[in-house]
Amino acid sequence: MAVVVRNIERASAETIADLAECGVATVHEAQGRKGLLASYMRPIYSGARLAASAVTISSPPGDNWMVHVAIEQVQAGDILVLAPTSPCEDGYFGDLLATSMQARGGVGLIIDAGVRDIRDLTEMNFPVWSKAVYAQGTVKETLGSVNIPVVCANQLVNPGDVIVADDDGVCVVRREEAETVLAAARKRVAAEEDKRKRLAAGELGLDIYDMRGRLAEKGLKYV
Amino acid sequence: MAVVVRNIERASAETIADLAECGVATVHEAQGRKGLLASYMRPIYSGARLAASAVTISSPPGDNWMVHVAIEQVQAGDILVLAPTSPCEDGYFGDLLATSMQARGGVGLIIDAGVRDIRDLTEMNFPVWSKAVYAQGTVKETLGSVNIPVVCANQLVNPGDVIVADDDGVCVVRREEAETVLAAARKRVAAEEDKRKRLAAGELGLDIYDMRGRLAEKGLKYV
Amino acid sequence: MAVVVRNIERASAETIADLAECGVATVHEAQGRKGLLASYMRPIYSGARLAASAVTISSPPGDNWMVHVAIEQVQAGDILVLAPTSPCEDGYFGDLLATSMQARGGVGLIIDAGVRDIRDLTEMNFPVWSKAVYAQGTVKETLGSVNIPVVCANQLVNPGDVIVADDDGVCVVRREEAETVLAAARKRVAAEEDKRKRLAAGELGLDIYDMRGRLAEKGLKYV
Amino acid sequence: MAVVVRNIERASAETIADLAECGVATVHEAQGRKGLLASYMRPIYSGARLAASAVTISSPPGDNWMVHVAIEQVQAGDILVLAPTSPCEDGYFGDLLATSMQARGGVGLIIDAGVRDIRDLTEMNFPVWSKAVYAQGTVKETLGSVNIPVVCANQLVNPGDVIVADDDGVCVVRREEAETVLAAARKRVAAEEDKRKRLAAGELGLDIYDMRGRLAEKGLKYV
Amino acid sequence: MAVVVRNIERASAETIADLAECGVATVHEAQGRKGLLASYMRPIYSGARLAASAVTISSPPGDNWMVHVAIEQVQAGDILVLAPTSPCEDGYFGDLLATSMQARGGVGLIIDAGVRDIRDLTEMNFPVWSKAVYAQGTVKETLGSVNIPVVCANQLVNPGDVIVADDDGVCVVRREEAETVLAAARKRVAAEEDKRKRLAAGELGLDIYDMRGRLAEKGLKYV
Amino acid sequence: MAVVVRNIERASAETIADLAECGVATVHEAQGRKGLLASYMRPIYSGARLAASAVTISSPPGDNWMVHVAIEQVQAGDILVLAPTSPCEDGYFGDLLATSMQARGGVGLIIDAGVRDIRDLTEMNFPVWSKAVYAQGTVKETLGSVNIPVVCANQLVNPGDVIVADDDGVCVVRREEAETVLAAARKRVAAEEDKRKRLAAGELGLDIYDMRGRLAEKGLKYV
Repeated sequence: MAVVVRNIERASAETIADLAECGVATVHEAQGRKGLLASYMRPIYSGARLAASAVTISSPPGDNWMVHVAIEQVQAGDILVLAPTSPCEDGYFGDLLATSMQARGGVGLIIDAGVRDIRDLTEMNFPVWSKAVYAQGTVKETLGSVNIPVVCANQLVNPGDVIVADDDGVCVVRREEAETVLAAARKRVAAEEDKRKRLAAGELGLDIYDMRGRLAEKGLKYV
Repeated sequence: MAVVVRNIERASAETIADLAECGVATVHEAQGRKGLLASYMRPIYSGARLAASAVTISSPPGDNWMVHVAIEQVQAGDILVLAPTSPCEDGYFGDLLATSMQARGGVGLIIDAGVRDIRDLTEMNFPVWSKAVYAQGTVKETLGSVNIPVVCANQLVNPGDVIVADDDGVCVVRREEAETVLAAARKRVAAEEDKRKRLAAGELGLDIYDMRGRLAEKGLKYV
Repeated sequence: MAVVVRNIERASAETIADLAECGVATVHEAQGRKGLLASYMRPIYSGARLAASAVTISSPPGDNWMVHVAIEQVQAGDILVLAPTSPCEDGYFGDLLATSMQARGGVGLIIDAGVRDIRDLTEMNFPVWSKAVYAQGTVKETLGSVNIPVVCANQLVNPGDVIVADDDGVCVVRREEAETVLAAARKRVAAEEDKRKRLAAGELGLDIYDMRGRLAEKGLKYV
Repeated sequence: MAVVVRNIERASAETIADLAECGVATVHEAQGRKGLLASYMRPIYSGARLAASAVTISSPPGDNWMVHVAIEQVQAGDILVLAPTSPCEDGYFGDLLATSMQARGGVGLIIDAGVRDIRDLTEMNFPVWSKAVYAQGTVKETLGSVNIPVVCANQLVNPGDVIVADDDGVCVVRREEAETVLAAARKRVAAEEDKRKRLAAGELGLDIYDMRGRLAEKGLKYV
Repeated sequence: MAVVVRNIERASAETIADLAECGVATVHEAQGRKGLLASYMRPIYSGARLAASAVTISSPPGDNWMVHVAIEQVQAGDILVLAPTSPCEDGYFGDLLATSMQARGGVGLIIDAGVRDIRDLTEMNFPVWSKAVYAQGTVKETLGSVNIPVVCANQLVNPGDVIVADDDGVCVVRREEAETVLAAARKRVAAEEDKRKRLAAGELGLDIYDMRGRLAEKGLKYV
Repeated sequence: MAVVVRNIERASAETIADLAECGVATVHEAQGRKGLLASYMRPIYSGARLAASAVTISSPPGDNWMVHVAIEQVQAGDILVLAPTSPCEDGYFGDLLATSMQARGGVGLIIDAGVRDIRDLTEMNFPVWSKAVYAQGTVKETLGSVNIPVVCANQLVNPGDVIVADDDGVCVVRREEAETVLAAARKRVAAEEDKRKRLAAGELGLDIYDMRGRLAEKGLKYV
């Protein structure tokens, strides 16, 4: 049952780069409010912002053997997405693995578990979104799988899906929907730009979105 | 039952500004250790420090309609205090609403739920203390109320109460007690300044506060 | 039962300084993956990194009297390690106590409870690893003990044990094992340096650690 | 600032008894979905169901002195509602205090902290809804207050308010609204009885509540 | 995007009944340790044990409209599996909905949110595994979907998949693997029966599973 | 570093039996409020009450190999105390291991992790206090140790220490203090019996413990 899928499809590099520009909140709205990982997934440092193709890892708790296996499958622009098969906060990943990732063009890590060496990772500019920071080491005894669908922080992630991540958290976009979602996200960005100007000028959302009638109809009383 | 109270009383701008200077820990002590919101209320970035008059929002879970209604009630120097009627960590508030708040002179947000667009909010210098950072969007379907008393993060907040917030958390000061609390806080600040100097010079708290006798009386043994 | 042990043994200052250099993750591995405090122990600001001799405090919940007692026992290079006798997140410690600590050469605080005045502590460059940031004050009514063995964040800490702390968390090293652990940690640092170079050059962990055979033997399939 | 209010008003015994019959979920709906304590407030045994007048206690963390003070204020049919001034899970209350409560006609305890001796309390048929079960004892060193408004498990409770509690949790009803809420609750009970029969006979909520049109209008698709 | 899938495939009633007999722990092992929902999913009363076909619900937070829609799709032997689109612990489900479920042959509920009326549900013998017990009501304002794949408590559940649930928690078995998993589970049951006898007779697992050699080889020392 | 200590000292069977009679809350008070395990350690069924000698296990996360090793060391009247070396909630223990324990006279399990097969364990009358109930299985790949001191749920437990456990939780008594603690506990039981009678007769704790003077002295006001 332990398998490594070598060849996965990825979205186009251009689409991925453009999704990164839109950011998590916009992309999440643009695809109909789905795909958001649990809010406990936090970045190890502020300001990172990326989109990348998922190389997925299903790993036993406290065992990071499969991370080494996965890195061989990484191409430039990929991000590792690790889901333990049982809840765990051990530090599966540190600066040596990040060095290896960067050498192969890997751009980050999403891990529903722990990470360590965060001072080094920060200096290396290697972004990680994790459930925990924890120096607890792991063993290399039990197999897992690479590039199978995984559930990570309460979301299904398929290999090759696009991960969008920033200070707001992490969102997964299905590979085959990446183009459509990008188009919708761009529309939102444009629409928001216009609204931002009007709001900055002092107009109220109540008026811009024409809410007053519906509020009255529902029975809101001003006293 | 859904109401918007338009006119609320506020403490004087000068008192509010001076409470901000004192900071949360001092104000909390000065008013007899009451009014502190739960420790899970954390700032989205470090270093923010403010005091402001509360415009309160009671909102259904996952529904930010009332935020738009509340912003119309905001005056310069006000802060929104949002309490959902059921626990929720959705991102009720992002950069567009912050733009609208700033346009009206609003200075921040206290929310017992989630916030998003924190990169933008940080750049805008718009401080938020929240329970969660989460890109999850909300709907606009169900009414709530504005400027009624709410319980936020285990504290009662009345509209017009003074919110003091900094890196230590959030504290609420009753509007009608603001002057008294400020006076007491100033006394503490002065007294602490003196103690700080003595402690910095190497004197021990044991001696400054004259604790040795009472410790011995209670039975402390040195071995 | 309330005692203060005045004289405790400490590891050599040189050993302690060198352990700080190695960092938590390396030291924890070097001593066989033991001694790591719970992952909820987080630094109040990023970038701090130290090793120090533990002056331990067993304190009632919500009562910081013993902190004053403990500071008298602090020598240059010591760190306070406070374990409440019942779970508590009150702010036992703030800028005045930090001033007193620094005046005596104390270098930090590990506390399985809360801390406050973190803006001041950050400016003072006084590092704290804590379970919570909380402005809630404490009383001075009930005795505890100083320099007895305590369990702090699920680890036993004896007075005089070496605390190593950085952005990854906190690890305790038995005083009598400090030399041995340092030697082992140095070996790891050296070995890691070599591996880092090879990984940076694009070699895979799979090859450096010679994992392919064992993976195949356990049954890993590539598809 | 430490006060004991001796005389509080209570709702009528008959109203209180009838609210108990309605149960928490119904009463909560009947009063417009307000007043529900946090879901972590759980009964120590299943099947208890009561309504009672609140005698409130504001108590320091880890200090149960005020419980003794409060019991003197208890009348037949009252329930203690204890809110610590800082989060705490210590066992403030055990079988001796329950014996004292029962001797005075007190009927239970709502505590946003811990309770102990639950085997005895269960045998005594003394119901408690608490945040924790924990044998950790408390001290009697610091004053608090009795019969002042408190925030307990994120709800404001005034002395004399009616507490309704059962396996679903705990709800507070304002004393002055008790009659109105009871009337509304009775209507719900009657209406639910009718619906229960129709649902039991196989009718669908979709038809009983006439939902199909509005679902279609909102755009629900059947495939 | 809001859809109701009317026709779903189900595993055979016989297979489902037999999986119930095997229990969660055995089924989970038999299918290679996958499919287990998060441990916070707990039964509202002890002793329930079932297997059933999943009718899935994707629902907005705090909105139980789709439950009514889903019940129309329920056939005898089905169980509802509700996943909110954002974390929520509101009480989506109570005795009226359970009455409707039982009238249609529905056998239970798995809900990654809250449930209420648990005294009634217990008397009705209607089992629920939930994240919370909470009387908080919900609205009927926003659409969701029925019988689409959902992630519930960190596991993917497809409509028609087999849910196995008992006091140990909840496990999902893919519909198309139900036969194979049942066969493997039966083997385990038989093998365990034999081991149980040997262990009851005082034989050690060390000997039954022939562990001594491998322990010695790994370096275990007896002292 | 992986060791099994074969011979441990135990307290006398009579002392142990008598400690069980006193119960957790009384024993904890009698030994000066120390030794209480974290409140998240809960029994899998109500009503169990025991005292027993600890056979300790230090185990890797998700690996129950050492449980088999430990059972060989169990004598009649012993209880297993398992502490994982990193936080974990996997189900290390089920009905087969319980069968083996009972065959050797073992009386229960304290585990800072998960347990499964709780329906069977309940029927077998085999009590467990655990952090979680979780069907997630474990592997047998990595060594740990048996009968070394462990920190379990934030308390140090030495092999041979006496574990007292009931519905209130779990307390550890040092083996060498067992007699003294028992004597103190018996005194408390006697004293409590007298107080219970007086309280049941309607006397107030305020009078029995002579609190009124000290309350007045501290400044309590009756209004």
